[in-house]
Amino acid sequence: MKHWIAGAAGVVGLMMTGMITTGMAQSQELIVEKKVFELPSYTTQSGRTLKNVKVGWESYGTLNADKSNAILICHFFSGNSHAAGKYAAADAAPGYWDAIVGPGKAIDTNKYFVLSSDTLVNLNTGDPKTTTTGPASIDPDTGKPYALDFPIVTVGDFVNVQKALVESLGIRKLVLVAGPSMGALQTYEWAASYPEMVAKAMPVIGAAEADAQLIAWLDVWAAPILVDQNWNNGNYYGKTPPNAGLAKALAVVTLQANHGDWTNGTFGRRPAKESDAPAKALANKFQVQSILDNAGEARAKVSDANHFLYLVKANQLYAAGGISLADAASKIKAPVLLISQPKDLVFTADTIERTAETLKKGGVNLTQAFIQGTRGHLDGVISMKQAEGPIRAFLEK
Amino acid sequence: MKHWIAGAAGVVGLMMTGMITTGMAQSQELIVEKKVFELPSYTTQSGRTLKNVKVGWESYGTLNADKSNAILICHFFSGNSHAAGKYAAADAAPGYWDAIVGPGKAIDTNKYFVLSSDTLVNLNTGDPKTTTTGPASIDPDTGKPYALDFPIVTVGDFVNVQKALVESLGIRKLVLVAGPSMGALQTYEWAASYPEMVAKAMPVIGAAEADAQLIAWLDVWAAPILVDQNWNNGNYYGKTPPNAGLAKALAVVTLQANHGDWTNGTFGRRPAKESDAPAKALANKFQVQSILDNAGEARAKVSDANHFLYLVKANQLYAAGGISLADAASKIKAPVLLISQPKDLVFTADTIERTAETLKKGGVNLTQAFIQGTRGHLDGVISMKQAEGPIRAFLEK
Repeated sequence: MKHWIAGAAGVVGLMMTGMITTGMAQSQELIVEKKVFELPSYTTQSGRTLKNVKVGWESYGTLNADKSNAILICHFFSGNSHAAGKYAAADAAPGYWDAIVGPGKAIDTNKYFVLSSDTLVNLNTGDPKTTTTGPASIDPDTGKPYALDFPIVTVGDFVNVQKALVESLGIRKLVLVAGPSMGALQTYEWAASYPEMVAKAMPVIGAAEADAQLIAWLDVWAAPILVDQNWNNGNYYGKTPPNAGLAKALAVVTLQANHGDWTNGTFGRRPAKESDAPAKALANKFQVQSILDNAGEARAKVSDANHFLYLVKANQLYAAGGISLADAASKIKAPVLLISQPKDLVFTADTIERTAETLKKGGVNLTQAFIQGTRGHLDGVISMKQAEGPIRAFLEK
Repeated sequence: MKHWIAGAAGVVGLMMTGMITTGMAQSQELIVEKKVFELPSYTTQSGRTLKNVKVGWESYGTLNADKSNAILICHFFSGNSHAAGKYAAADAAPGYWDAIVGPGKAIDTNKYFVLSSDTLVNLNTGDPKTTTTGPASIDPDTGKPYALDFPIVTVGDFVNVQKALVESLGIRKLVLVAGPSMGALQTYEWAASYPEMVAKAMPVIGAAEADAQLIAWLDVWAAPILVDQNWNNGNYYGKTPPNAGLAKALAVVTLQANHGDWTNGTFGRRPAKESDAPAKALANKFQVQSILDNAGEARAKVSDANHFLYLVKANQLYAAGGISLADAASKIKAPVLLISQPKDLVFTADTIERTAETLKKGGVNLTQAFIQGTRGHLDGVISMKQAEGPIRAFLEK
């Protein structure tokens, strides 16, 4: 079954500094608190045991007595666990999926206890509201940042840390696991690796396996960091970080997360400054160039280049359940609501269809819904109000 | 009118070193010679006068007595004037459009005199068969490479130098101007700026204006060079060149010039080396990563980073005729055969349609034809045999 959801795109204007986490402010009352979950010891899928693994998390709504009303939201590549609500009423914007998570909303926090956690190797190391463990963290054994001595981690590791958090709360089964983009990858991973714990799964703008095309495009994201000599094979802590490369990397992410309907419609061929015509000097920019570069530079200041590279690696290695898309199809037992945007340039329509067809062929009860907009991939973060009907129906059935 | 051309894609296998210039070898007899055209003085559209401007060129077939049978082929971003034939019978591959240019072929060199020239700021400065003038050239006034003192040049400048070459041969009107990708940009430019000299125009896989989306993606191509400290604001001649950045830049070009049908179908999730699993180390690669990186590194050795950046700039500044797409539509008088590939990731289907619709609205007699394949953009270089029917019909009518 396929739902086509009509309706105009969410228009977010030029709030590019908040970039992909910028949502539409709505009147709502959800005030949330960031908490920290700590595991004294965690062994990665690659077999390395890490001490004192910490991740931030937050929750909305109340866990019921039998702990049967919990929903887990997983975040996207450059996001964190701030899925909904505000830390203070004066915050400029709420969490990224606030349009669908809150009191009376599609994922109703009057009914459900919704939680979300920061992943391992989360990008936002300079954000005080993010807690993560990764190459920029201090290795308790050496007193220095791990840098590239940090083990390769997978989406499976992200999920295993979340599972420890969920279990620490006494939750044995989740009503729903959901998330956009890399959050969709975690959603399929949960459903394939812990089918007994996932009642329903809602991956948004994401596939159940990284194909060659995604693997190659993720290299395009990473390229500017790898050629920035300040990256220095990951050893830049206490020195000049590779922020020129990281800023360009983040600009690439922003561009691919959007669609030409947005860049063309918003910027056209306007110069960044009327007085500095792009034709006059190599460094003079069109507006679209300067907006993307500025957004990348702002984000780079609160991000870590090694964490970016480890996230790229985790996404490249990804196949739900650790083996393959076909294998995932045989493991997933939960009904799946797959929401996608046909103009998505990261997880393209044909990639999404390959996941949908393979899962259905494997016997998965899969429903698709589609959202629209000028932003492409990013619509799965900022334009989710369009999908509230299918989400409500999926949760209720 | 739209032709849909059926037929399988040209399969080029893994000849990635020759990359986007790799064509299908065919039995043919065209042996060509590279020549050099020199202008003692050329004034750019930006107003700088350059001395001793040289570009390479080649030709196929014979110019008739009244010089009325000439066709000009314009090359793509990373290409040169080797459009057809071989320099020696033992050459591994012929010129890139050899499938449609030669004796008895769609562009029949028994009938037409076909010529092609290297552009200004051509990328392939290390290729002995390419002659160009750009930042890597010696400034006669200083005896040193221009580096960033070379003026910004435009697609209009590329065309003006070609026009001088064409006129030096006594040709006053071209039967056809044609070319793929950046060659299409030059084709529209010719038709808009010199309508009295262009009888017919055949742009392939290209639009008549760079929109915001293309401008932004060209920045993604350039990013790895700009963050490579060896680029040194363009001053690397006689020092270590920014080849790490240039190699990554060329890898990005190769990826975007192809389609996921090719990367997924060719490489899947195979590791580059069975013994070095991608999950074991940050630097271990999947095959698709290693093929693209190796292709970029090989090409970087014979390319120049500043020339790459100047080409990016020329493409970003581009609007046929120098003003806008709508303006070009009012200037172009030649009938146009626009050939495109709906899976093109550089000039996407919606961008091509915007050009087609705007030109038609402006009164241009425009016919569209479509080619297919797994390569996307690159099919406009390597799979052109599919289009021979529409090309013959267009030339004959």
